[in-house]
Amino acid sequence: MRVSSRGEVDPFIVMDVMEAARRAEAEGRDIVHMEVGQPGTPAPAAARAALAEVLGRDPLGYTVGLGLPALRARIAQLYGEWYDVDLDPGRVVVTPGSSGGFLLAFTSLFDTGDRVGIGAPGYPSYRQILSALGIVPVMLEARAENRLQPVPADLPADLDGLMVASPANPSGTMLDRDALDALIDTCHGQNTAFISDEIYHGIEYDKKAVTALEISDDVYVINSFSKYFSMTGWRVGWMVVPQSHVRRIERLAQNLFICTPHASQVVAAAAMDCTEELEANMAVYRENRRLMLEGLPGAGFTKIAPPDGAFYVYADVSGITDDSRAFAREILDRAGVAVTPGMDFDPDRGAGTLRFSYAQSTARIREGLSRLTLFMRNRA
Amino acid sequence: MRVSSRGEVDPFIVMDVMEAARRAEAEGRDIVHMEVGQPGTPAPAAARAALAEVLGRDPLGYTVGLGLPALRARIAQLYGEWYDVDLDPGRVVVTPGSSGGFLLAFTSLFDTGDRVGIGAPGYPSYRQILSALGIVPVMLEARAENRLQPVPADLPADLDGLMVASPANPSGTMLDRDALDALIDTCHGQNTAFISDEIYHGIEYDKKAVTALEISDDVYVINSFSKYFSMTGWRVGWMVVPQSHVRRIERLAQNLFICTPHASQVVAAAAMDCTEELEANMAVYRENRRLMLEGLPGAGFTKIAPPDGAFYVYADVSGITDDSRAFAREILDRAGVAVTPGMDFDPDRGAGTLRFSYAQSTARIREGLSRLTLFMRNRA
Repeated sequence: MRVSSRGEVDPFIVMDVMEAARRAEAEGRDIVHMEVGQPGTPAPAAARAALAEVLGRDPLGYTVGLGLPALRARIAQLYGEWYDVDLDPGRVVVTPGSSGGFLLAFTSLFDTGDRVGIGAPGYPSYRQILSALGIVPVMLEARAENRLQPVPADLPADLDGLMVASPANPSGTMLDRDALDALIDTCHGQNTAFISDEIYHGIEYDKKAVTALEISDDVYVINSFSKYFSMTGWRVGWMVVPQSHVRRIERLAQNLFICTPHASQVVAAAAMDCTEELEANMAVYRENRRLMLEGLPGAGFTKIAPPDGAFYVYADVSGITDDSRAFAREILDRAGVAVTPGMDFDPDRGAGTLRFSYAQSTARIREGLSRLTLFMRNRA
Repeated sequence: MRVSSRGEVDPFIVMDVMEAARRAEAEGRDIVHMEVGQPGTPAPAAARAALAEVLGRDPLGYTVGLGLPALRARIAQLYGEWYDVDLDPGRVVVTPGSSGGFLLAFTSLFDTGDRVGIGAPGYPSYRQILSALGIVPVMLEARAENRLQPVPADLPADLDGLMVASPANPSGTMLDRDALDALIDTCHGQNTAFISDEIYHGIEYDKKAVTALEISDDVYVINSFSKYFSMTGWRVGWMVVPQSHVRRIERLAQNLFICTPHASQVVAAAAMDCTEELEANMAVYRENRRLMLEGLPGAGFTKIAPPDGAFYVYADVSGITDDSRAFAREILDRAGVAVTPGMDFDPDRGAGTLRFSYAQSTARIREGLSRLTLFMRNRA
């Protein structure tokens, strides 16, 4: 049977690592998972209890396309709590994960052949989803001196859209208010739609991340319950869009998804009031980060920038290898630690980088660091 | 902010009906819902219990992109049970509802500007999703003498794809083995990709629906847990694709969705063994159908074809009105029964048709029919 050209999507390099790790575990080896981009924790206990209670009495059929009104209201309230932003719940759209937000944003904003800038290194699915929709991803190679975030000088004048992430995956670096303001201002000046991926908000260490909504209402903001709220597998996220875009997004959502999973919306709404458990998770990430920033340089991974948020450290290993894929394989085989080679995030420069995730338990992070240290010592 | 042209999606006409029904209920009126396309029943009790059990002990993180292996195997087994088809579980892809299946199938098979045939009347989101992806929906007006299903003579030779549904929404009619075979044969002869939407399989009255997989492996089959398995709000479905397409679908799914909701996959796997409860639901649909086929003509809706499956009756009301939208509004206002005007399903001819759903409880169907009878009597 015939196939499309747009359906030719690059494989994730990390999948090879994950499959190799799975095989090693099947053979009885113990593997420390520093490749996974998800918390090891479940959704908060009270949120799961809320679903268990509803399961017995509600058929949990389709919700309206924009999401449960109570959840939209609770999300709007979060913008007051986190950023002191007064947000109309009518501008909040519940989505099937941030993945659903990308699909909605890209189809709402861009036509076939439009050019959308994304920073490299960055989340690999941005460019794959854009390509699958017939949109042209324009890779903007961010520089180390800009902490791997794009700056106005990086933006071609003919961009139809720009997507930024702060805190970013894989670097964990943030755009501060001035940096975000400069990018939004440049975009508005050249009719470039601005999309802010804020999926790692809430997982910050020294200062609060800035939402694009503090700067302008004329942006799309994409967020998710996957990371801070520890709900990856539930596939629920949200968008905030300009008031004038709500109806078109509603129609797109009705047709593309019908609705976000009802049960996941119930869990999400309850999770937003589980601050104590979520902050306990944060205490783990904070301790893990401290261990990583001490342990990675100690092991020999010296070219790292302290992450402002998220749960990753992105390391420049170009002084150690020119093939991060083979290097990651070697680390897995010899140290029993799974890490992600950089090519998924930065096709051109990723052969010289690795991403280390510290989303798992502190005991496992300690174990991973001690294995990495031994591995590097033996390798030297 | 700029917007795309592909994001300009037609509104669902039925949404106006649903909003009017909601307002009427808010004012204290009792409304019989014959507009909704979903069961009134929840997921089977044992399936909900299975999730409640897992909630306490599994973090329910991301699953692999193609879905839980045990669920894929159980779905493959269903093809043996229902159709005596021996299916390799490796060809089964778990999707976020049939909606997710459409997105995967369309991006895997079609490029921008490709032409995909869909029958009218048919599920409205087919054409909206195609348009949002930059693909051209080609409406094939099906004829009453073909029981509103497309036949080979309806297919232009230059179609890149054809999508059929059996049992169909809104008509409930099925393609028998010969009819399906003729369509697949014609498509294979002219290099037209064939997609079979089998979402209403299991909800059949006189004979079993035929799956396209009984005829060819060189097709895409899309199905869902929403209807027979009574799990609309969980957003979980599946596809069966040719072996050679599995890898490309896997990569697309990883990027577009990451995975189908984990909890929903747990419920789905357990639901497949809840035959007793599901067949009890079927007994309700069967009785409702009997009442509809007796009551609608009695009320004056005489131009209907008995549905082979699903839970809809599609009525030709062109002898009563030339504006089914106004007529549906009148039925809602005066009879307190919400029904769907045909324009959502058939833009050109739907002003003369209505869809009645009988997915709700038998008591409500009885009440609805009695109101419709009285309404038509007073109107005459």
